[in-house]
Amino acid sequence: MIQTPYLLFLGDAPDPLAAKVAQGIKDWRPEFAIGQFRMEGCRADMGLPDMTLAEAKAAGARTLVIGVANRGGVISAAWKKVLVTALEEGFDLASGLHNLLRDEPDLKAVAEATGRALHDVRVPSVKYPIANGEKRSGKRCLAVGTDCSVGKMYTALCMEREMVARGMKASFRATGQTGILITGDGVPLDAVIADFMAGSVEWLTPDNDPDHWDLIEGQGSLFHVSYSGVTMALIHGGQPDALILSHEPTRTHMRGLPGYGLPALEDLRDMALTLARVANPACQVVGISVNTAALSDDEARACCAEIEARMGLPTVDPYRHGAGRLVEALAAV
Amino acid sequence: MIQTPYLLFLGDAPDPLAAKVAQGIKDWRPEFAIGQFRMEGCRADMGLPDMTLAEAKAAGARTLVIGVANRGGVISAAWKKVLVTALEEGFDLASGLHNLLRDEPDLKAVAEATGRALHDVRVPSVKYPIANGEKRSGKRCLAVGTDCSVGKMYTALCMEREMVARGMKASFRATGQTGILITGDGVPLDAVIADFMAGSVEWLTPDNDPDHWDLIEGQGSLFHVSYSGVTMALIHGGQPDALILSHEPTRTHMRGLPGYGLPALEDLRDMALTLARVANPACQVVGISVNTAALSDDEARACCAEIEARMGLPTVDPYRHGAGRLVEALAAV
Repeated sequence: MIQTPYLLFLGDAPDPLAAKVAQGIKDWRPEFAIGQFRMEGCRADMGLPDMTLAEAKAAGARTLVIGVANRGGVISAAWKKVLVTALEEGFDLASGLHNLLRDEPDLKAVAEATGRALHDVRVPSVKYPIANGEKRSGKRCLAVGTDCSVGKMYTALCMEREMVARGMKASFRATGQTGILITGDGVPLDAVIADFMAGSVEWLTPDNDPDHWDLIEGQGSLFHVSYSGVTMALIHGGQPDALILSHEPTRTHMRGLPGYGLPALEDLRDMALTLARVANPACQVVGISVNTAALSDDEARACCAEIEARMGLPTVDPYRHGAGRLVEALAAV
Repeated sequence: MIQTPYLLFLGDAPDPLAAKVAQGIKDWRPEFAIGQFRMEGCRADMGLPDMTLAEAKAAGARTLVIGVANRGGVISAAWKKVLVTALEEGFDLASGLHNLLRDEPDLKAVAEATGRALHDVRVPSVKYPIANGEKRSGKRCLAVGTDCSVGKMYTALCMEREMVARGMKASFRATGQTGILITGDGVPLDAVIADFMAGSVEWLTPDNDPDHWDLIEGQGSLFHVSYSGVTMALIHGGQPDALILSHEPTRTHMRGLPGYGLPALEDLRDMALTLARVANPACQVVGISVNTAALSDDEARACCAEIEARMGLPTVDPYRHGAGRLVEALAAV
């Protein structure tokens, strides 16, 4: 539905993590990302050519994708100027922000006048059911994190890519705006009404072949007080057969919560497994994914080895080292 | 805002639990409830006079309150006929259903034509923040249940009534439609967008006097796969200093989930306390409330005594035996 290729709008991203939507598209659908648009003060860089709107248009870009998230999701006046110009120059807009494009009177008016589309992937387009807890056929894997933004989506995407390469049946199931912009469908879970969260995850991961795996995109963390309810709904709606623990070893406090330290992987394991077994008594923790982006090669290897020795579970950075060992652990379930 | 007194609409409630909205109003604001309206097949009874719309109008009723919940919240054709007639006879309507009165074209048209009000307390009227996890002054108590509908709201209301009677500072904080219909304000938590759930609970329970207690209305259960995410947001947004465990001893399976047994109180205690201490390391489990409505006096006493001996915590049915011991446990925190 969203016209490709994209120009990725990085705005005035305060740090690289804020641009994880753009990074995800660039990493998983590089053929869709032909350039980036950065404003003054932008601290993110996808390594793509910096383009003006006119340059991107000349290069064939069809849609300006807002690749940067603001906490709370506000569209600033400085952004607005770029977005209006983009519509006028013939781009569609796509966004996963809470603050919807369609709710901005000027964007809506210009889009209507120019005949361009506003894609708000944040907004659920389905009336989800209340979860019924019934057992479904097929298998499901969910990554749960010690914190938000520790690599849960990348873990699932790496595993899907590796499983498909090995001829296994696997589907990445997007639960956030980045995943939805990458794959074209999914559930924007953090925008779902509370009562229907677990039901939307059941809807996203229906009955399937007995040897098919859903790789469900994780969200939040059981230990992140702002978003833990969303994580809980994934665990109980997803009925995972396998859990992957995800961790970022250099994080000094929970993201956005300076007063909160990270839990130990042991605490995450015990908490997540106990909760998961409410919905699926056969659930197992099968491996650990470590986001080692901030470490050197030697440090990354040492970090994974230390965690593997301590936890007794296959431990890799699937983006850096490959997801093979995690996939083998899954196959052994 | 909602005009009193009420006629309580029980519809064709399939069982007494389905009419817990009406029961709550009758128990906690009996002066507002002058009669009940029941349809054929109704299996709920508030012990109030059965009235036609005309009789209730003559007795002074101003608002027809929908006191019965349907799973999924659908307004049937049979209900609709009564609601339209009520508007025509001069009643306002008030409802906590998911299916909003204002979304029904016929109800909306008749309400506009007759000048009557449609109150949908289900719908949030506030733009809630994302939770920031910061410590707030004052104290907070939350009831967490082994299942849904086990008496968490009644526990909080009983404790508030007892605390106020003792001259303590206490406020019941409503998080569901019944509580909101009873008290006139609160957060309709199960209708809040996922990302803002915990933030809405922070908003509901702001800084207060050091010796003031919020009695936060619980929702769902950590062990109920349909609604556990909502419970999680209450635990992390509410930052409770004290937890009460709530239980209904005759329940054979989780409400609405025939395949799911109830957790042991020990499992609820350990899980809820571990999670609560993420947000408030000083949190304690201070007592147990048992909904003994299905038991005889002797059975109720024996049940509470058995649980108290096993768990080592003050255990009462606060509605049947009074909330004094729970309030004393709270005062000792």
